[in-house]
Amino acid sequence: MRTYLDCIPCFLRQALDAARLVSPDPALHERLLRDVLRWTAGMELSQPPPVMGQRIHRQLRALTGQEDPYRAAKQEQNRMALALLAELRDRIAAAADSLEMAVRLAVAGNVIDMGANGAVAEADVRAALERALAEPLIGDMDGFRRRAGRARSILYLADNAGEIVFDRVLVEALRPARVTVAVRGAPVLNDATREDARVAGLSEIAEIIDNGSDAPGTLLADCSEAFRREFAAADMLVAKGQGNYETLNQGPREVFFLFKAKCPVIAERANVPLGAHLVVRHLPTDRGEAGVLGPRP
Amino acid sequence: MRTYLDCIPCFLRQALDAARLVSPDPALHERLLRDVLRWTAGMELSQPPPVMGQRIHRQLRALTGQEDPYRAAKQEQNRMALALLAELRDRIAAAADSLEMAVRLAVAGNVIDMGANGAVAEADVRAALERALAEPLIGDMDGFRRRAGRARSILYLADNAGEIVFDRVLVEALRPARVTVAVRGAPVLNDATREDARVAGLSEIAEIIDNGSDAPGTLLADCSEAFRREFAAADMLVAKGQGNYETLNQGPREVFFLFKAKCPVIAERANVPLGAHLVVRHLPTDRGEAGVLGPRP
Repeated sequence: MRTYLDCIPCFLRQALDAARLVSPDPALHERLLRDVLRWTAGMELSQPPPVMGQRIHRQLRALTGQEDPYRAAKQEQNRMALALLAELRDRIAAAADSLEMAVRLAVAGNVIDMGANGAVAEADVRAALERALAEPLIGDMDGFRRRAGRARSILYLADNAGEIVFDRVLVEALRPARVTVAVRGAPVLNDATREDARVAGLSEIAEIIDNGSDAPGTLLADCSEAFRREFAAADMLVAKGQGNYETLNQGPREVFFLFKAKCPVIAERANVPLGAHLVVRHLPTDRGEAGVLGPRP
Repeated sequence: MRTYLDCIPCFLRQALDAARLVSPDPALHERLLRDVLRWTAGMELSQPPPVMGQRIHRQLRALTGQEDPYRAAKQEQNRMALALLAELRDRIAAAADSLEMAVRLAVAGNVIDMGANGAVAEADVRAALERALAEPLIGDMDGFRRRAGRARSILYLADNAGEIVFDRVLVEALRPARVTVAVRGAPVLNDATREDARVAGLSEIAEIIDNGSDAPGTLLADCSEAFRREFAAADMLVAKGQGNYETLNQGPREVFFLFKAKCPVIAERANVPLGAHLVVRHLPTDRGEAGVLGPRP
């Protein structure tokens, strides 16, 4: 997906929020904001939004001198989510359709996103959980089920810390022996890395790889050769979160995107209500950007 | 008031909204957005926000070749407000405190602002009217009343079209023979000009002047010599809207600002809830930015 003009005020808002979250220094906030203004003034809009996200967060790490400014936040998010793990499993066990319940919960976990929201509280996570059960799951759950029924291997692209605990219950439901979970290659925002996969207990049940990249999405050209091989070879691709959707929704392979539509641009392009819980099946033949329920007029 | 870092994403959002409102051409939207990105990257933050607003709207007029892109919107806003005029007067006649009611209504009229909101519907204006009666009027209404009781001359700085009809009922309550109403010197956004003062019927009851400037606020250095003389000479200064507050709240004279706090930065600085209906008395001795109810810690 290309960058829309509406993404640009949002980059600036997010850069400012991020700078304030990781540093109390107003001079640093101003410096980062001015950098992002200069970069966006000249940016190539055909690139997906996470290209700018990657640049912003690299600069934030350089300016603060912190390799992983969100480390404490990620630990807290993992802790909050792990406290819910038994309940998540109970819900799946009690569900008439356990796979759909696991998908719903994985999408609910996508609320733990410090890109779209500055901070996430325990109450937000619990509220998201309740909504996940009440709200319709929009998209192609049947296609997901069919593909999952046939796949010998599944590559599951994780998104954020905390959320990755919700991913764990879906991975469990997908028969973990055939699942490989991919995380980011280096810290960016609160995105999940190997450490988060370990804390979530995923490394005990599935193979974990990293994508070699510090983009808040999956920019294939920026990923490691090893990751690209896995991406090309897997029978089924599942990708969590808006960042993965923005970077892979016009890519060469079929992908099932599981996410919550948190931004108006995405909701508009996907032709769904803002906040919708989505299972978007991207077909590699899509050239333009089709809505979930068909191409936009 | 200086420009805060939070104002910058907002400039971009407003520039994009404005471009889309006055032109269907995406290339023009992008051009304006990139211009504003370049300007804000290097801008002097000690300037009040309307300096950038002035520059943005000058460029918008240049790019569209339209001298007054908001003309139709302003006409519609005046029409909507004039349809309420009889009701506004009835409310003042029925009020126990007619001056306070007139001030409340003038503040309610400040919802007709295309800077903070993209568009204003008839229902918004009516809802604002109801809220104006229900909500507390925060600030120094007593100071306003005392000053108005003594003043031989009042300079009333209007803000927007439509809103200026609400100003008319306050001007009526202030004894119009001593009131001069100042409007912008040239079109900018939906700010009121001489034409709007005429349509609102203000020119029949009070003297109308313009400030000689196309800023969406009152940048004294950018105003005409004649306006500055009136500004210096009036016994009492009343200024409507955030743009006037942002440009005059650290100025050389006492000013009573009547406005609705529409943006988080202003609400934070003024130490009031977002959306508050305000009578802010600015004292010329204020050096920093004091809250309505005293300086912030």
